[in-house]
Amino acid sequence: MGKHFENLIAQVKKYPMKKISVAAAADSNVLSAVKEAKEKGIADAILFGDETKIKEIAAEVGMDVSQFEIRNYTDPIEAAHEAVKLVHDGGAEMYMKGLLSTKDFLKSILDKEVGLRTEKKLSHVCVFEIKGIDRLLFLTDVAFLPYPTLEDKVDIIANTVEVANACGIEMPKVAPIAAVEVVNPKMPATVEAAELTRMNEDGTIKGCIVDGPLSVDMALSHEACVHKNALDRKITGDADIFLFPDIHAGNIAYKFIVHTTEFLNGCILTGTKAPAILTSRSDSTETKLNSIALASVVAEHLKNN
Amino acid sequence: MGKHFENLIAQVKKYPMKKISVAAAADSNVLSAVKEAKEKGIADAILFGDETKIKEIAAEVGMDVSQFEIRNYTDPIEAAHEAVKLVHDGGAEMYMKGLLSTKDFLKSILDKEVGLRTEKKLSHVCVFEIKGIDRLLFLTDVAFLPYPTLEDKVDIIANTVEVANACGIEMPKVAPIAAVEVVNPKMPATVEAAELTRMNEDGTIKGCIVDGPLSVDMALSHEACVHKNALDRKITGDADIFLFPDIHAGNIAYKFIVHTTEFLNGCILTGTKAPAILTSRSDSTETKLNSIALASVVAEHLKNN
Repeated sequence: MGKHFENLIAQVKKYPMKKISVAAAADSNVLSAVKEAKEKGIADAILFGDETKIKEIAAEVGMDVSQFEIRNYTDPIEAAHEAVKLVHDGGAEMYMKGLLSTKDFLKSILDKEVGLRTEKKLSHVCVFEIKGIDRLLFLTDVAFLPYPTLEDKVDIIANTVEVANACGIEMPKVAPIAAVEVVNPKMPATVEAAELTRMNEDGTIKGCIVDGPLSVDMALSHEACVHKNALDRKITGDADIFLFPDIHAGNIAYKFIVHTTEFLNGCILTGTKAPAILTSRSDSTETKLNSIALASVVAEHLKNN
Repeated sequence: MGKHFENLIAQVKKYPMKKISVAAAADSNVLSAVKEAKEKGIADAILFGDETKIKEIAAEVGMDVSQFEIRNYTDPIEAAHEAVKLVHDGGAEMYMKGLLSTKDFLKSILDKEVGLRTEKKLSHVCVFEIKGIDRLLFLTDVAFLPYPTLEDKVDIIANTVEVANACGIEMPKVAPIAAVEVVNPKMPATVEAAELTRMNEDGTIKGCIVDGPLSVDMALSHEACVHKNALDRKITGDADIFLFPDIHAGNIAYKFIVHTTEFLNGCILTGTKAPAILTSRSDSTETKLNSIALASVVAEHLKNN
């Protein structure tokens, strides 16, 4: 493995330490993650939720809860409302889901008064370091937007370019991927990919280089581009951002990577005023910490831009 | 790596040696593959095409062309017509694409008089042995059918079950995969996956166990099913056949596997009277030989069933 996430965490430690506002924190999964993040100097956290339960679970996971600020709200919806408001008001730089449904978590993010909504669509990005690949790959959207429209894809690109920028990639290469690397009028994904490329050429999509439709071999392998006589493309095996045609393609590819390769990853929700973290119970501790580190570099980037 | 393809090739060598009928064989890529297949005792070949050119290219790739029967047809379409007819008439058990377009190759397969058409839709299957996974995975369709209908999917399952049977898997587990493992009325792929499961339960789809919609984590990892409290599913990390919702999902996942994992694979076209092989220029020699070996076990299976 390379040292991309290791470097990302080292970078986070150089910044002033950021705070995570946790919605409905009475969850062993989430408390373990914030405990580790604090121990490792990655981030601090403020815990919104049922104080009694939080203290019980903290004891179970061996967490010294006295080191964290707890704000007592027994109703998870209310806890989320207050937790997101803290981020909205600038009292914390990141927002994290605890023991409430994804739907209620998203509702709090989208709240018009205290939420984190921007004019852009929310999207999810999963950042991968994969053995044998010399850079971070930004996969989007593998978990959130089911069938993004062309307009949604413009937002997804903008959201993800910001995350790539935060990770130190100044001019990311964006591959709207499909089964093939040429436009086929019978395949809408290829038509939209070509349109995104055109919108990048005319300056509508800025801060990145878009080249689609692109097949994954050409997005990942320079050698494949040599084989296909395609060295005149803007992307020749060096794509940073992989924009999937829909959630099936995204999620299926994401899970094959997770279950068949040696990798490190971290994922966040973007298109928000502050990055949001939704870890899943089955994520490893490393993935949870990487997600927090990723959110931290994005928060730092947003502060400076 | 396991020894799945090694065992498959060992199995092929126990059968009477099969013949490949090659359409428009004047292609270095294809001649190298049939040369190796013959040297390794995997298959023999009859070469249809421009005899002068075949002999020239054979010399270039160090092939003793006197060991092969050549039938001289300078027109590639005519060569394909005669090559497929030989398979149709029982003079060869496998059909292979040489230097002609995929479209013309398929046309010859679909020819009503001399082709290899059955009542079923043609489909493509790519068989993978991946480091860390203790069985062969059958991925379909990653290269051929763009947007299979429910009816097409029934055919794809039947075609692929036959290939799995030929590889020694008596009752393959079929996962119609999607982004999620539950039906979501807003996601047609999940609705069709549930319908395929129902058709398997009522006996319309036979010879396999279908369980969908299924997410890839649950199709690949027993542990993921434990995490998700889903041990009551028919597939709990042990799927053999991965049925993709469309070609984007299939091709994208396929190429991520090829470019990020340690693997062996072989691919054939099925749903035909005899297996057809289309190797790509960028395939490794090992992949080409595995494809021929795969076609051989399928040909043997068809002979006996």
